[in-house]
Amino acid sequence: MRLTQYTDYSLRVLLYLAHKNDQMVTNSELADFYKISRNHLVKVVHNLGLKGYLHTTRGKNGGLRLARPAHEIVIGDVVRKVEPDFELLECFNTTTDHCVITNVCALKSVLIRARDDFLSTLDLYTVADAVKGMNKHSPEFKLIPITHN
Amino acid sequence: MRLTQYTDYSLRVLLYLAHKNDQMVTNSELADFYKISRNHLVKVVHNLGLKGYLHTTRGKNGGLRLARPAHEIVIGDVVRKVEPDFELLECFNTTTDHCVITNVCALKSVLIRARDDFLSTLDLYTVADAVKGMNKHSPEFKLIPITHN
Repeated sequence: MRLTQYTDYSLRVLLYLAHKNDQMVTNSELADFYKISRNHLVKVVHNLGLKGYLHTTRGKNGGLRLARPAHEIVIGDVVRKVEPDFELLECFNTTTDHCVITNVCALKSVLIRARDDFLSTLDLYTVADAVKGMNKHSPEFKLIPITHN
Repeated sequence: MRLTQYTDYSLRVLLYLAHKNDQMVTNSELADFYKISRNHLVKVVHNLGLKGYLHTTRGKNGGLRLARPAHEIVIGDVVRKVEPDFELLECFNTTTDHCVITNVCALKSVLIRARDDFLSTLDLYTVADAVKGMNKHSPEFKLIPITHN
């Protein structure tokens, strides 16, 4: 059971912007910091903008920042909005489902409850909670990109 | 977020055997019923045997049956044992993780809590709960393989 890399990168973008507070950040800065393909990152950032999480300013001094305070951005909401689907079993997609027992099987409703509990737990945390350890002046945070080389 | 097809098929095998009670069932019967590749199914069944969920008898009248009563087989246990991994984010795998903020980020612990709550909910249900609707004499259950043709 995994979330997609797309969701992983979306969360990383929000965390970095939260850590930078209200400073403008560029796609290149994000790509360099996380050592992620810029093309990949541009798509992630574009989608976060569409979903209302980012403000983008164009021009020479343009860039990205969070559209609202990090403590108002709930992790569960982000995951619901950026993860492509939550089709835990084949029967979750009624269009592509070929399972012959779908109509008489209780497994789907059990998995729906588990999925909802997963997301409800993520609803207890915000992006601000996730970056609490990222003290701006933490040498650890600044050194990590180097030590991982 | 999805479980693997492997886990999906593993659960289907257990449900069918639970529905059949103590009757011996063959791989071919399972493959025909679910319209799943026999080769694929043999691997699923082999693994369920290794994990202690099935008893296999060889020979002319051989086949498979559940190793213990369906009401003793907890869905959460099955999912933990057959799903290949629960690496929700890149940082869950310390060997392959390249995320530069892993050491200072609280996201992993948040996701671990959500994952544990997901599995705890699955621990509330057994294979017997999942097949309650599969009445042996239900025409619906018997007709589904035909109506899906």
